[in-house]
Amino acid sequence: MNKGKIVFNNPPKIISTYSCVGSEEQKGPLGKFFSYCSEDNKFGKDSWEKAESEMQRLALYGAIKKAGLCETDIDILLAGDLLNQCVGSSFGLLEYDIPYVGLYGACSTCALGLALGASLYSGGIAKRVAAITSSHYCSSERQFRFPLEYGGQRTPTSQWTVTGAGAFILGDEGRISVKEAVFGISKDMGIKDINNLGAAMAPSCAETIKTYFSEGEKSPSDFDLIITGDLGYEGSDILKDLLLADGIDIRKNHTDCGILVYDRKKQDKHAGGSGCGCSASVMSAYVIKKMEEGELGDVLFIGTGALMNSLTMCQGQSIPAISHLVRLSSSEV
Amino acid sequence: MNKGKIVFNNPPKIISTYSCVGSEEQKGPLGKFFSYCSEDNKFGKDSWEKAESEMQRLALYGAIKKAGLCETDIDILLAGDLLNQCVGSSFGLLEYDIPYVGLYGACSTCALGLALGASLYSGGIAKRVAAITSSHYCSSERQFRFPLEYGGQRTPTSQWTVTGAGAFILGDEGRISVKEAVFGISKDMGIKDINNLGAAMAPSCAETIKTYFSEGEKSPSDFDLIITGDLGYEGSDILKDLLLADGIDIRKNHTDCGILVYDRKKQDKHAGGSGCGCSASVMSAYVIKKMEEGELGDVLFIGTGALMNSLTMCQGQSIPAISHLVRLSSSEV
Repeated sequence: MNKGKIVFNNPPKIISTYSCVGSEEQKGPLGKFFSYCSEDNKFGKDSWEKAESEMQRLALYGAIKKAGLCETDIDILLAGDLLNQCVGSSFGLLEYDIPYVGLYGACSTCALGLALGASLYSGGIAKRVAAITSSHYCSSERQFRFPLEYGGQRTPTSQWTVTGAGAFILGDEGRISVKEAVFGISKDMGIKDINNLGAAMAPSCAETIKTYFSEGEKSPSDFDLIITGDLGYEGSDILKDLLLADGIDIRKNHTDCGILVYDRKKQDKHAGGSGCGCSASVMSAYVIKKMEEGELGDVLFIGTGALMNSLTMCQGQSIPAISHLVRLSSSEV
Repeated sequence: MNKGKIVFNNPPKIISTYSCVGSEEQKGPLGKFFSYCSEDNKFGKDSWEKAESEMQRLALYGAIKKAGLCETDIDILLAGDLLNQCVGSSFGLLEYDIPYVGLYGACSTCALGLALGASLYSGGIAKRVAAITSSHYCSSERQFRFPLEYGGQRTPTSQWTVTGAGAFILGDEGRISVKEAVFGISKDMGIKDINNLGAAMAPSCAETIKTYFSEGEKSPSDFDLIITGDLGYEGSDILKDLLLADGIDIRKNHTDCGILVYDRKKQDKHAGGSGCGCSASVMSAYVIKKMEEGELGDVLFIGTGALMNSLTMCQGQSIPAISHLVRLSSSEV
């Protein structure tokens, strides 16, 4: 590799996936695809942060069980979330006796985990890797924006942090493989609006997609789906415009995890879903299912993350972003 | 691998290292080894957080320059720090046009970066990897404990977050190689004292060291140095006791980055240094230098991290910890 596409010599398969979501996600258009839902969003815990950790624990438990494996079969965990010091992952996965690597890529973390997991598998470092990611609306809002009790009004470009977690087990068996990846380069285009993260992330997403297509071997039309996560409505429009200006047209087969997860008319979620649990739950539940059923064969998934914190916002800094890409292919394609 | 030692088939060499520190570290016993010091700890910036980012930028710049390379020669950056959402790294490394992977391992991040970087190199995913880590006393104190202006009294077991950053470039050339690694399993032994992180981290460190020696091929006396980072005085004593109870005696060749970095008599740092910049600066400046000079041949470095945040402390949770190990060997040994 050199700032470009990594083609895995020995691409791992996705053995199993498992997703956990809250009530709003369950009510959305993809509700029936999710593996587990907590109606009160608390997952049996007494704080939102503990609820988020519990989602991670459940997601990994479900994925290991679905794969017919046990804990000792997994060589390494790659996990991350949005909470300060990634405590959603470190507390949630504490009971597992499995080597643990903490990642931080904001909402790109699901794609980052898959890309890194595939790298470790392909390079012969690990035989089975689990990648787990989560976010929780309630823990996230109070950390990044306002206490929920404020009931503050949201701007039209704001996104709604998904309450969700998704786990993937990579290894030898399965119909879907992780064939290629691009680790993104972080970009800062000067956006300072914490309520418009789609705009902050779209340029980095465009860069990563351009890197992927730069060798000219493939074009967007070769893919059944190009799915970003999570630019929402606002960021997706910007992404399509940016790419079109460079001669890359993804308008026909692009969608975004933040667009899919909620019903725009019935659910009051403004510019769509966000949070690293958004792409983790949508990919692990819906997209993987459609690939397994043969409806989708070749999919590009680009995870997009905004790398600010609440203090950098207070200090007036703009919002850097990063986007990591993985290509998922079903074996019948 | 399976929860154990990874022996790299194609171990990378350490091409170069570079370290940046603040004034307290400069005044300590290792002062003359550090590459760069900012007397006012601000590194020319107007906030402590920006100063920490600047340390990361300078450390990578210095390491690339010292290696006689340029930015385009580096395939991937692995970086992390203690700030919320790892903004020390994401803002600090923003100007580099290099694929970026954000890590979170608290004070184990330097070892995690080296272990993961060696994995990506050995597996043929990347030809040159840079691993960068930082912490800053002032940004860290106000985030995790109290505003500095309080002037609060510190308990005897508390450690002093090092203002420092260290960068390593891994690749084909150099006298020192990263031969083996152990990715740690997180452990929580119920410690709840934010001012005694050494005690919280020592058990996970003992576990990782036991994993390394579990195959019985090697013993502690085979190493010139077993260096932990950063247990400080308190945690180091606990570690030695824990290991001794399991028949592993590291008393003769163990030290800790947090013990080395400050003068116990002249500098009022209680239980020693901590922070992911502690092991990053001590390893990149002092230990690597001693290995290059032939004084040390075979070194085990175990990075130790406490995975809490200020909210989990407020919610009464205990402090999980993780420890990652790398074995560094000089080519003449």
